[in-house]
Amino acid sequence: MAAPVKERKRVVILGGGFAGIHAALGLEDLPVDVTIVDRRNHHTFQPLLYQVALAVLSPADIAQPIRTIVRKHRNVEVLMDEAVSFDTTARRVFLGSGTQLEYDYLIIATGSTHSYFGHEEWAPLAPGLKTIEDATEIRRRVLLAFELAERQMLETEVHPELDFVVIGGGPTGVELAGAISDIARLYMKRDFRHIDPSKARVIILEGSPHVLGMYPEDLQKKAVEQLHALGVTIRTGAHVTDIQPGYVMVGEEKITAMVTLWAAGVQASPLGKLLGVETDKRGCVLVDAQLNPAGHKDIFICGDLAHAMQDGKQIPGVAQPAMQMGDYAAHSIGRDIAGKPRGEFRYFDKGDMATIGRKAAVARIAWPFKANISGFPAWVAWLAVHIFFLIGFRNRFSVFRQWAWTYLTFKDGVRLITGSHELPGWKAEHGVEVPKTGDAPKPPAAP
Amino acid sequence: MAAPVKERKRVVILGGGFAGIHAALGLEDLPVDVTIVDRRNHHTFQPLLYQVALAVLSPADIAQPIRTIVRKHRNVEVLMDEAVSFDTTARRVFLGSGTQLEYDYLIIATGSTHSYFGHEEWAPLAPGLKTIEDATEIRRRVLLAFELAERQMLETEVHPELDFVVIGGGPTGVELAGAISDIARLYMKRDFRHIDPSKARVIILEGSPHVLGMYPEDLQKKAVEQLHALGVTIRTGAHVTDIQPGYVMVGEEKITAMVTLWAAGVQASPLGKLLGVETDKRGCVLVDAQLNPAGHKDIFICGDLAHAMQDGKQIPGVAQPAMQMGDYAAHSIGRDIAGKPRGEFRYFDKGDMATIGRKAAVARIAWPFKANISGFPAWVAWLAVHIFFLIGFRNRFSVFRQWAWTYLTFKDGVRLITGSHELPGWKAEHGVEVPKTGDAPKPPAAP
Repeated sequence: MAAPVKERKRVVILGGGFAGIHAALGLEDLPVDVTIVDRRNHHTFQPLLYQVALAVLSPADIAQPIRTIVRKHRNVEVLMDEAVSFDTTARRVFLGSGTQLEYDYLIIATGSTHSYFGHEEWAPLAPGLKTIEDATEIRRRVLLAFELAERQMLETEVHPELDFVVIGGGPTGVELAGAISDIARLYMKRDFRHIDPSKARVIILEGSPHVLGMYPEDLQKKAVEQLHALGVTIRTGAHVTDIQPGYVMVGEEKITAMVTLWAAGVQASPLGKLLGVETDKRGCVLVDAQLNPAGHKDIFICGDLAHAMQDGKQIPGVAQPAMQMGDYAAHSIGRDIAGKPRGEFRYFDKGDMATIGRKAAVARIAWPFKANISGFPAWVAWLAVHIFFLIGFRNRFSVFRQWAWTYLTFKDGVRLITGSHELPGWKAEHGVEVPKTGDAPKPPAAP
Repeated sequence: MAAPVKERKRVVILGGGFAGIHAALGLEDLPVDVTIVDRRNHHTFQPLLYQVALAVLSPADIAQPIRTIVRKHRNVEVLMDEAVSFDTTARRVFLGSGTQLEYDYLIIATGSTHSYFGHEEWAPLAPGLKTIEDATEIRRRVLLAFELAERQMLETEVHPELDFVVIGGGPTGVELAGAISDIARLYMKRDFRHIDPSKARVIILEGSPHVLGMYPEDLQKKAVEQLHALGVTIRTGAHVTDIQPGYVMVGEEKITAMVTLWAAGVQASPLGKLLGVETDKRGCVLVDAQLNPAGHKDIFICGDLAHAMQDGKQIPGVAQPAMQMGDYAAHSIGRDIAGKPRGEFRYFDKGDMATIGRKAAVARIAWPFKANISGFPAWVAWLAVHIFFLIGFRNRFSVFRQWAWTYLTFKDGVRLITGSHELPGWKAEHGVEVPKTGDAPKPPAAP
């Protein structure tokens, strides 16, 4: 007599970030069919995005096609698409292409994006850093600033100040600011004949009283010291009231900015709201201790889309909890299938770290021992952790080699400017018309 | 008594391709001040661009900032700008930014771009391959075709044929076609669950009677054999009369095309015409045996902008002559300064080679011995030559490592899709609306 056929459960995972990938990999040995839906074809190792933005790494060093990651997992398929709505009663997800997916379990891990606090008009003037496209756009702007200044020098023997304004003093803002200061002072210095890239000024504008607010106070102070050592100016309590081409307003004060970057606010993916469940003011979904929104035990919210509480505090929206939440969701589905009760999700906090330029960092280590460290030892710790966690050893090797090369030689990196050759505010502020690539050449005014 | 001060000559080089870079490097030890003007910040190793287009290499593997290349050459400066006109009497170049450069010697090496034979409307439908941006655009389209087909399968259980049409059967067309066939059959096959990427069809449409027309007849035949072995269809004598989203017309025949690529025609940079000297029908400048246009011994035209004759034949517009012309121009300036007569330019032909897929090629070897080889030995020769000539050993190492990895493992490459998620013709032909990244999700029709 044949054994009864067990029906395979269908799991739909929305989002191929840390949480989604960990969930998919965790479901490998279960009798489930998994579909990962992401509107991008690649997983991005977001903690290193700023190194692509500052021309240390190439996009391919930190991004990998999701298909490649799950290639050997024959129960996982990947769809480059986007969820646009849900029917949680019929257990269906509707995708942008018109396809419908049925699910037994739904894992939503679509993360967050920039929030300009209602000022969407600031987006083209101050790009944020969430995607590979964002990173190459920031790289383009930063590198182009030096090129345009060099050109201006040749024409007029003066150039506008090389002012880089980073709005937001969280880890991303601190890392961007430190890295800009580094490439200007160490790497680009020898490449220009007329301007002095080391005179570039980097300013962090932070609305709260402290940079790296989520870190212990002693590390905040260390971070400030290390940023000052790199020549970065920090303005705390600075609320940006307007962003225009070429400058940023803080109250009545006008701060000139050849390039403005946004690292200030994030908002959750809109999928939480579309689900019709309770969300917080940033759009994160309120979940219980099993990462389920109220009334939906078949839906897990993972990563920074989840508003999850632990010991009276909200679990932070960073990489570690996202990975653990993905693991947990997969594990819970396994418990269900085995007919065992689910446990509760516990975030196991190993710590946080942020680099500050080329050889400094701050690290709050919570495991395997507790310590707050800073400076070079923290930077070495950062290096080790980030190489270790890069998915896929080819990339890991490539990144390590690239870092070693750049660190030892101060050389190269990947300083390619691709795309447009214009910078917002350049023409308006300086009266210089930038030729567009591909424009038909035009005759000059009669000489 | 002080020695008489020798006035330093000013050399302006327009274009940072093979010819321009070789000219700049050749001027290193002369009492000259050199300005390289290029509208891009990087030199591109064009013979390997197709490998970026087909996701084997990263842009940074084959492109390097011009500043980095000439960093140690203290008499060379780089300007990211574009020449828009000339005053050859006053010896001035006018740049798009408004800057004017005076010169004693002018080296123009701005190369060529695609020609759509007057059909500029074809450009967005059939991208060509000249720049890093072109390569990432082709990569995006080719990869996206597979993703969209997979998605379509899930919805309708059929998908449009994976037809890739390459217009033009010169070296670039042959290399693109071979590489598409390769990645479809060898690399992408294991990544999809619903479609069979190995069923992709690649067609070369060539207007003349032969592919690789510039090669000896026996190598043309070998190339055809090798392309057939890869499953590539070759249509010679096929004149494209129209390109539309989703198909290409050859006379009255409609050839379906999920992706169309353009490798058919080139036209010279418009600077030749702006100079007011005699040009051929493609806009190349007619030059004498010293690479000067008539009446301008202080202007050198180098690379594929030059229409130079040797032994009754036109020197081909490929990398080797461009490098040699750059060297020659620098050398000639040195002869002038030394008060010695200039020699004549002689193209020293070492041969030509084109790869056909993963382990085949054709090579016409002209030096150090004469031989026409094909297949795997030609591919090994191609590999050696291209690694050797890559400027900068960091890139050389990186490319070698990447090639070795891809060749040995059939793995990875850099298959990132960045930018838009739409393909021309996809929606119109198949009735499927592709969600745009960043679009606000919209509710579906009432389920």
